[in-house]
Amino acid sequence: AQLALEKDYETHRDYETRYRVIMEAARDALVLVDVTTGRIMDLNTAASQILGADAETLTGSSFTQEFEGRRRGEFVENLIVNAGDEGSGPVTAETKRGKKEVAIDPVLFRAAGDKTLLCRIEAAASAETVAAEVS
Amino acid sequence: AQLALEKDYETHRDYETRYRVIMEAARDALVLVDVTTGRIMDLNTAASQILGADAETLTGSSFTQEFEGRRRGEFVENLIVNAGDEGSGPVTAETKRGKKEVAIDPVLFRAAGDKTLLCRIEAAASAETVAAEVS
Repeated sequence: AQLALEKDYETHRDYETRYRVIMEAARDALVLVDVTTGRIMDLNTAASQILGADAETLTGSSFTQEFEGRRRGEFVENLIVNAGDEGSGPVTAETKRGKKEVAIDPVLFRAAGDKTLLCRIEAAASAETVAAEVS
Repeated sequence: AQLALEKDYETHRDYETRYRVIMEAARDALVLVDVTTGRIMDLNTAASQILGADAETLTGSSFTQEFEGRRRGEFVENLIVNAGDEGSGPVTAETKRGKKEVAIDPVLFRAAGDKTLLCRIEAAASAETVAAEVS
C-alpha cells in the first residue's frame, strides 16, 4: 500500500507541475480565491499585473480589498451567484491599486474539501482607454 | 511518515483539480505532448475544437499526425527548439482534419521525470477567414 501511495504521489506531483506551467502559459489573468476566507490562494503574472502588485504581496491577502468600494461577504457572494448563473455576464469592478475597470468571470469548484473560486479577470476597454489608444 | 504522505497526497489531489479547472477555464487552446512518444497526453475543449476531433479520440494519439505533411521526429524537435528560443515566433502548421492554419507556441517542462511540451495553439486569421467574416 505504501508503494502504491508513493506511485500515486508521483502522479500527483506531476499535476502540480502541470498546474504551474499552465497558470503561466495561459494569457488569461487567473486568480484562485478561497471562498471561506475570501483570500487569494494563488494567481498568475497576468493577474498580478492587472491588480497592480506582485504575486508575493497579493497571495494570502483579501481578494475583495483589491477592488473599490466592495464589502467582502457581499462581493464573494456575488461571484458565487454569478458562477452558478450561465446566462449572466461577468461581474464588473474597479481595481483599488490602478483604478482599472475590470470584468471578472468566476468558476466555482471544490478542491480537497474547500470551495474555491477561479476568477478570470479582464481589463475592460473603457471609453477613456479606447480614446487614449486612438489619439 | 504514512500520515505525512497522506496529507501530501490530499494537497496534490487538490492540484489535479486545479489543473483540470484551469485547463477548461482558459480560453487558450492547450495541448500537452509527451516528448518521448510524441503523443497527446491531454488537451482542453478549445484545442479539440481547433484540431477538429473530440478529446477522447485525440488523447493518446500522435500530435504530429494532426498536421499536414509533418514528420514526427522533425516536428517535435522543431517545437523543442522553438520552446527554448525566446526570440523566435510561433511554429506555423496546417491541421489535417480541418485544414486550418494555426500558430503553435510551445513551452518545454519536466513533470515526474518526463519531458513534456505544453503547446498553445491559435487559429491564424487567414485572408480567407477575414474575407468571410467581413462579407
